[in-house]
Amino acid sequence: MRAGGKSWRTIWPIPDPVRPEGVQVIDQRQLPHRFRIVTLGSPEDAAAAIRDMTVRGAPLIGVTAAYGIALAMRIDPDDRRLAAASALLAGTRPTAVNLQWALARMGRVLDDLAPDQRAEAAFREAGRIADDDVAVCAAIGREGATLLDQRWRAAGGDRPLQVLTHCNAGWLAAVDWGTALAPVYAAHRAGLPLHVWVDETRPRNQGASLTAWELGAEGVPHTVVVDNAGGHLMQRGRVDLCLVGTDRTARNGDVCNKIGTYLKALAASDTRVPFYVALPSSTIDWRVTDGLTQIPIEERSPDEVTQMTGAGIDGTVMTVRLTPEGSPAANPAFDVTPARLVTALITERGVCAASEAGLLSLFPEMSACTS
Amino acid sequence: MRAGGKSWRTIWPIPDPVRPEGVQVIDQRQLPHRFRIVTLGSPEDAAAAIRDMTVRGAPLIGVTAAYGIALAMRIDPDDRRLAAASALLAGTRPTAVNLQWALARMGRVLDDLAPDQRAEAAFREAGRIADDDVAVCAAIGREGATLLDQRWRAAGGDRPLQVLTHCNAGWLAAVDWGTALAPVYAAHRAGLPLHVWVDETRPRNQGASLTAWELGAEGVPHTVVVDNAGGHLMQRGRVDLCLVGTDRTARNGDVCNKIGTYLKALAASDTRVPFYVALPSSTIDWRVTDGLTQIPIEERSPDEVTQMTGAGIDGTVMTVRLTPEGSPAANPAFDVTPARLVTALITERGVCAASEAGLLSLFPEMSACTS
Repeated sequence: MRAGGKSWRTIWPIPDPVRPEGVQVIDQRQLPHRFRIVTLGSPEDAAAAIRDMTVRGAPLIGVTAAYGIALAMRIDPDDRRLAAASALLAGTRPTAVNLQWALARMGRVLDDLAPDQRAEAAFREAGRIADDDVAVCAAIGREGATLLDQRWRAAGGDRPLQVLTHCNAGWLAAVDWGTALAPVYAAHRAGLPLHVWVDETRPRNQGASLTAWELGAEGVPHTVVVDNAGGHLMQRGRVDLCLVGTDRTARNGDVCNKIGTYLKALAASDTRVPFYVALPSSTIDWRVTDGLTQIPIEERSPDEVTQMTGAGIDGTVMTVRLTPEGSPAANPAFDVTPARLVTALITERGVCAASEAGLLSLFPEMSACTS
Repeated sequence: MRAGGKSWRTIWPIPDPVRPEGVQVIDQRQLPHRFRIVTLGSPEDAAAAIRDMTVRGAPLIGVTAAYGIALAMRIDPDDRRLAAASALLAGTRPTAVNLQWALARMGRVLDDLAPDQRAEAAFREAGRIADDDVAVCAAIGREGATLLDQRWRAAGGDRPLQVLTHCNAGWLAAVDWGTALAPVYAAHRAGLPLHVWVDETRPRNQGASLTAWELGAEGVPHTVVVDNAGGHLMQRGRVDLCLVGTDRTARNGDVCNKIGTYLKALAASDTRVPFYVALPSSTIDWRVTDGLTQIPIEERSPDEVTQMTGAGIDGTVMTVRLTPEGSPAANPAFDVTPARLVTALITERGVCAASEAGLLSLFPEMSACTS
């Protein structure tokens, strides 16, 4: 997608895809105040980038982990190094399932290869995972844009469609296009008039910093609101639909996403606003039959709650403390929205009910996958 | 209540209550980083302090407005000045009804007095309004503490009672004790083990800055969380009850309070956590028969959303920008929680259902007040 008049992906091999020496990513901790590129040269770099949220978003952390394995194989392609890199990367974040999915896919390609073939194969496979993600997100965009167009017509077709989103599930969360924002971009490019309410998304402000920045760069009309405001906007009829991403989707349709998603889904249900979740099938955890009890919720540093980073008057990025010294804070990073609150899921294969039957109607090959 | 080892109210006349020349208040915009006292010498000072939120909280803005009238009468006690000061103060904030209630009470005392008697009478009446507020909040504390004790026993009585609160309805929002926090303070002083989850309360962070500071100063165990977290905590059984204040309560039991209250009430209802609202009867608007459609919602500056103020590394209070330049923001300051989501109201006369019948059972003298 576009930024500063140029087209970007969020991650790419350097100096070129054929003989890569490293991987570059956009440093998402600096946005929207600075656009900085960071080079990752080792699996340790990749793990640190995932853990400190230089890169974030379920699809992108999967791709970054895949490249992390490739970087490890470039340094030392033996079995021990492969296992160690895989364990290191798997331990970076516990909630998103794409990470485990991407590492498993890399393992399937590399395990039976001779060490001297691994580096090249690993970069090729990581590149395929990235390209697949772009194709999947583009398909989600097409499927979702059709849905947005239907909702716009259902709302009368005489004013911009009002979409509310939480966190950032845009191209910065993936390789390109994004998940929840892919339908928005596709519909916007097709000429559908729309406006996006952007939840700030405390504690890390991915909405206020990343989603607002993405939408602004693409010219999509939007307004930032605090996370507290969405219920009121829905009560007043100012939201036509909610559209969010997910870090892990359970087999029963329960959706684990950024903390606060559950509250918006409750408000949508209470005010009869449709609540859609867009996801690549790589975020479905077919072994999880009940999201509410079986998905581990990452607890992050209290500093993310007690402090906030932004740009000072002179543009310098700085951090300020919000709470009294001595007041503790807790920081659960995700919550689970029960399937009963989700109107439909938007996947790369189409739209389905948030249920096991709904998911299996699109992915029948997964019916046997229960362990 | 206590701060820095001393007992304070939020507002007091100087140099003394008998022959006051001005009024002093705690500057709540500087907390928790600095404890500063500000002197108000005129109705314009009082209006500015209410508008810029040097003072805030429904009860306290009522008392500040009353003192604003007294300050006007000290400068010039004629009818025109009285009407002008009343209009100025009434226009500062549209949602809280205490402001109108306090101004009407001052008007009833002053209108028929000769100008040369007004200043003394006005300070006396403002002082009575302040003292009445303290007595009312203390009564809410007693009534609510009994309820907390019941809930603690109902939860087994073997671990601290887990209370979640939104915004600041503590002593800083009133003259002393507070509304929602009065039961917490009363129960804590009576030895009930409890712990308070403090919603940060974006955009102005009254929870993270004021509630956390109050609770810390009184030694009440607490943990700050982002506004997004409460639903997840309730899903996981980590909240025994919610307890919030209100800026205006409708005759039908609908509760207008800080933006985001509605989302917590939805989560409480969905997870079967009791949701209580504590209020002095001065916040009841008996003429409003439907809170959702009839209460005006104040829209505040977008700067409160796009910027955040905190303490830098050296302790200096500074403001940082969170959003990209050019991204607009909206800032509705309140929302309305429908009565159906409220378990009970806690007033100075006892606990009642959130309904017209419930309110009239405690305030039968208001049955005829419908205009």
